Amino acid sequence: MIMEYISSAKNDHIKAAKKLTVKKYQKQAGAYLLEGWHLVQEAINAGQQPRRIYATEKFLNERELKPFYDQTTEISPDVAKHLAETETPQGIFAVLPLEEDKLSEPLSGQYLLLDAIQDPGNVGTLVRTADAAGVKTVVFGGGTADPFNPKVLRAMQGSQFHVKIVSTPLPRLVENLKKAGIPVYGSELNDAAKPYREVAPSDQFALIVGNEGNGMSQDLLAATDQNLYIPIKGRAESLNVAIAAAVILFHLTA
Amino acid sequence: MIMEYISSAKNDHIKAAKKLTVKKYQKQAGAYLLEGWHLVQEAINAGQQPRRIYATEKFLNERELKPFYDQTTEISPDVAKHLAETETPQGIFAVLPLEEDKLSEPLSGQYLLLDAIQDPGNVGTLVRTADAAGVKTVVFGGGTADPFNPKVLRAMQGSQFHVKIVSTPLPRLVENLKKAGIPVYGSELNDAAKPYREVAPSDQFALIVGNEGNGMSQDLLAATDQNLYIPIKGRAESLNVAIAAAVILFHLTA
Repeated sequence: MIMEYISSAKNDHIKAAKKLTVKKYQKQAGAYLLEGWHLVQEAINAGQQPRRIYATEKFLNERELKPFYDQTTEISPDVAKHLAETETPQGIFAVLPLEEDKLSEPLSGQYLLLDAIQDPGNVGTLVRTADAAGVKTVVFGGGTADPFNPKVLRAMQGSQFHVKIVSTPLPRLVENLKKAGIPVYGSELNDAAKPYREVAPSDQFALIVGNEGNGMSQDLLAATDQNLYIPIKGRAESLNVAIAAAVILFHLTA
Repeated sequence: MIMEYISSAKNDHIKAAKKLTVKKYQKQAGAYLLEGWHLVQEAINAGQQPRRIYATEKFLNERELKPFYDQTTEISPDVAKHLAETETPQGIFAVLPLEEDKLSEPLSGQYLLLDAIQDPGNVGTLVRTADAAGVKTVVFGGGTADPFNPKVLRAMQGSQFHVKIVSTPLPRLVENLKKAGIPVYGSELNDAAKPYREVAPSDQFALIVGNEGNGMSQDLLAATDQNLYIPIKGRAESLNVAIAAAVILFHLTA
């Protein structure tokens, strides 16, 4: 069987695939475009069913792609460049179903809550870091970059296939976490904040991290059980939000 | 006295200033361009002497700029946009002397060593994180992004004015650190690596972090006293280099 080959970026399939990097079209199609060999491998290993794979010639003999032969279309390097968000594309893309995870009930375990984190690199790094720390659920609150944004996908490094990614408003969730007896920690310096090392590691907690410029929303801050802060020894005024989350998470999960 | 006003990006001073974002011209002129109000304030507060400040009208009455009135040139918003590396420029820039720090002798204290860290955002975040952790010296080894790269400057958030930034080859420095009795830690997973929590915090250490894709150079790795690793609990394969450095540094400096 001869595989389909596309060498023009004006091909309708390619135009449609390119749109799957944009939220509006992702929602319409119920699908998103994932770029790069490592990430496509992660998706396949996680049991994801690509609707279509676009790959340049060098990937066509990869063992992991064999089960998806019927869904694979060969593309030229020029088309790969057109589809790519990266400057030096590897030349492989998968169209994957846009499935949002739901919170497991009853609420239990460790959670990272993102309150209006805007930078896609920060958001992706936060998910990757939560994954590494063993935190099983990352909640995207209002104002947070979209999980299917290409830059978020790249920074997550496939961790979206290892942890639950849930988009939901945080205020109600925080109430429910507290009802479930799960301590909710903020991460903003205020008069009542406690150095993070004074809280013992635990298998039940939720940590909220806030917007890069403005910090956590005041309502959420008021709803936390305890605010944690990282004592600064030098003269830096603050830490990058993903760095701060990492330091606290690796302590709480130790 | 009427302040000079420049409204054309073709003005020779502006053309020269723009070049001061590029390493080659920075070296020739012995100066670099720093963008943004927070960073310019940090520079002034650190006692830096700007050779020139380019500012749009809204900054001209700032108290901190008064001592530099003779060095300040007003620019139009269009010129600010031309000079800027950011998408929404604030409209203020300083031309600062390109001064490299030197290592304080005798060697003593806490060091972060960057071995071929290529991503400017990572490099800048590493310096900012070292600053926050109280580490006083960050050493840029071969292959590491330049400290005066605009993206590095942005991610450092002014921490270059709080810690020593030294560019020097790492192999010889590591030998000298060891001779001075300062333990040198690697951060690469190998058979002999130790979980980072098993090493006690100390006021004397050097931590080496390695290239994003390839890790530390093998020669450096062989020269370390001990390799440290961060146990991964989830299924992420690795951590972002700045995240990993943060987790280890905040432990070692606790």
